Amino acid sequence: MKIGVLGTSMVGQAISGKLAELGHDVMVGTRDVEKTQANTAPHPYGFPAFSVWQKEHTSVKLGTFADTAKHGEVVFNATNGTGSLEALKLAGESNLNVKVLVDIANPLDFSQGNPPSLSVSNTDSLGEQIQRAFPNVKVVKALNTVTAFLMVNPGLVGNGDHTIFVCGNDAAAKAQVTEWLKGWFGWKDVIDLGDITNARGTEMYLPIWLRMWGALGTGMFNVKVVR
Amino acid sequence: MKIGVLGTSMVGQAISGKLAELGHDVMVGTRDVEKTQANTAPHPYGFPAFSVWQKEHTSVKLGTFADTAKHGEVVFNATNGTGSLEALKLAGESNLNVKVLVDIANPLDFSQGNPPSLSVSNTDSLGEQIQRAFPNVKVVKALNTVTAFLMVNPGLVGNGDHTIFVCGNDAAAKAQVTEWLKGWFGWKDVIDLGDITNARGTEMYLPIWLRMWGALGTGMFNVKVVR
Repeated sequence: MKIGVLGTSMVGQAISGKLAELGHDVMVGTRDVEKTQANTAPHPYGFPAFSVWQKEHTSVKLGTFADTAKHGEVVFNATNGTGSLEALKLAGESNLNVKVLVDIANPLDFSQGNPPSLSVSNTDSLGEQIQRAFPNVKVVKALNTVTAFLMVNPGLVGNGDHTIFVCGNDAAAKAQVTEWLKGWFGWKDVIDLGDITNARGTEMYLPIWLRMWGALGTGMFNVKVVR
Repeated sequence: MKIGVLGTSMVGQAISGKLAELGHDVMVGTRDVEKTQANTAPHPYGFPAFSVWQKEHTSVKLGTFADTAKHGEVVFNATNGTGSLEALKLAGESNLNVKVLVDIANPLDFSQGNPPSLSVSNTDSLGEQIQRAFPNVKVVKALNTVTAFLMVNPGLVGNGDHTIFVCGNDAAAKAQVTEWLKGWFGWKDVIDLGDITNARGTEMYLPIWLRMWGALGTGMFNVKVVR
């Protein structure tokens, strides 16, 4: 399947690497292709520059946001949440329209230090902002509640016995994403929270998630909804 | 032990009922004792009026917020979050000072309908507001992430194999509350998130918790932190 992944950072690398490994035709999108190709310095968080990472994932193509949105039959938004709306505008509404957009981004605002606050929350969410800005795109919020490695390999902790959430306005799109989460990545327990306003819930979960990371000393954890 | 529980609603009933059952000397605090005694109508959410509930929990006393704060060697804040600061002012700083205050309240704002938003979030929290207003009280935020019945009986779902959080500025107070959560209520996995600013995390968890309630059709669930 032709898949577009917007964003070259840790989440973009995890998603595109896994999808390429599964044999999909993956393009990763960036704002400035030349700049991304020229940058070889590891990110301060420890993951490699995309250009370095790509040498070990040679089937993954690099393109502009627009190239990538055009390429994908489905598109993943793995950009920084505070820049997602701008990145999606560069990707182009006509390239995104009527496609499923899996929105993984979190609107984390690090401008006041760490832990970050959210740049939108409580009575709105990034997922809703994206859906409003692109009314004909089928936005499904998913995967934004776990660290990148777990997104595509939940079995890395607790034998995969934990929970992931989806929400969005299009029932068929959510059913499709749920199937992908299970089939491609190995998720066993996927809870459909409802429409895209539920992105407020999964995005506002980030503050406790970041604090659990601090308390546990690792991002390799997730919650299992016990019921 | 002499325990004060501020709030006569579902949470106050659950906490005080369990503590009385364990043999503690429990007083429940309300704004207006006569009004609380006169009210016999069930709450719209289905739990009984305190006056009716009290007939089956005769060892639990009813008093003003101030009586109750004075009575308790430890005090639980089980008031509505949007009214907590006012209730605690009525309880009286001098009656609360240097005591442990277990803050269970959530700042849920139903004024714009259901699901509610939070009246404080993101860069502040109710837990922090209470700690700032009462600097000599040992505020420990706890139990605000589960439904009332589970607070005092986690074994009701998943054999009790799930997680509860504490946070606060006083390490000894948190250790004491953790011991109570385990010994009195039966919690097995208690995660200390850190100082009281972490109340932002547990309070901002409420939106996803409320939406899970909607999706699952029951409040009888909790998260287990799988790591």
